[in-house]
Amino acid sequence: MSNASIDSLIKQFAKLPGIGPRSARRIVLQLIRKKDQLMLPLIEVMQSAAEHIVTCPVCGNLDTQTPCSICDDPRRDDSILCVVEELADLWAIERSKLFNGRFHVLGGTLSAIDGRSPQTLNIPSLIDRASDERVKEVILATNATVEGQTTAHYLTEKLSDCNVSVSRLAQGIPIGGELDYLDDGTLGAALKARQIF
Amino acid sequence: MSNASIDSLIKQFAKLPGIGPRSARRIVLQLIRKKDQLMLPLIEVMQSAAEHIVTCPVCGNLDTQTPCSICDDPRRDDSILCVVEELADLWAIERSKLFNGRFHVLGGTLSAIDGRSPQTLNIPSLIDRASDERVKEVILATNATVEGQTTAHYLTEKLSDCNVSVSRLAQGIPIGGELDYLDDGTLGAALKARQIF
Repeated sequence: MSNASIDSLIKQFAKLPGIGPRSARRIVLQLIRKKDQLMLPLIEVMQSAAEHIVTCPVCGNLDTQTPCSICDDPRRDDSILCVVEELADLWAIERSKLFNGRFHVLGGTLSAIDGRSPQTLNIPSLIDRASDERVKEVILATNATVEGQTTAHYLTEKLSDCNVSVSRLAQGIPIGGELDYLDDGTLGAALKARQIF
Repeated sequence: MSNASIDSLIKQFAKLPGIGPRSARRIVLQLIRKKDQLMLPLIEVMQSAAEHIVTCPVCGNLDTQTPCSICDDPRRDDSILCVVEELADLWAIERSKLFNGRFHVLGGTLSAIDGRSPQTLNIPSLIDRASDERVKEVILATNATVEGQTTAHYLTEKLSDCNVSVSRLAQGIPIGGELDYLDDGTLGAALKARQIF
């Protein structure tokens, strides 16, 4: 790495999540080798993204339009609001194509250890939206982690004054899961929430 | 992923080596979230690299100057030439700071299976350089793989007409290696090349 330009490119790539100095070197080599097929298109889409993508003021989604295409879609169900921690969770639910309501991205979870208080999350706007009389149900689709569950508890309390029913994602054995490989927590949750046919 | 701009950014990142769709999504999320600290600097260094980095016509190294800074450095030893498969190998040797001669990047290895013939590699220019009377030794620093060794054999023959001594990197137990964990090939090579004190 005798060259400062290549060096800074490698350093910049190594800052991305999941990429260490070794993979950064591999990526940069490939980019330089395939300049026209890889590097120039990547620069182009990144520039366009940097210019046009904004956070939706309503739900916290990212889009090139405000409000975002989900908030703006008249075919979506206004009566149901799905609360997620992060944008990646919204994407996961959208990929499943199984939900047709609106979203609300919290921007994280509560965590006493990491000093994330309710003020750091998009909670006031959630209460506002849940107070709208069109909204009938709020699904708290936070992760099944300690922080996610704490946040869901907190929100359940906060939403008790709004005239909505509050639901949570079901916990249990994942589809295709084998009992032998499940952790005790999941197995316990699945037993506790067992359904009678 | 309701947005075409985000979608194409993810797709472009997923084309890079070692990055799948999942890591591409994580990277893109992080990039958009930290636009000023991550995305804009990355665009900048990539643009500068795309504009300025060229392949050195002498040795095959990448640099912003021609000939590259290694070929151009008067303090380097002209009498010794280190032949490597790929640029990544040149970088590895440069990182070690243990070699002060010149380099020659082949651009790959011979491989009958993948259809890489001698014509696809920078072999003619190597012969030219090795024929220069200042060059006394050529180190064949190809990988210790079948292809690397085949290429080294081929080059040894090709270089027999030039007035240079041809050497290869030593094979044996890596520093810190434990016999118990070594493969038989390495152990065999280490035994065969044992040194008497």
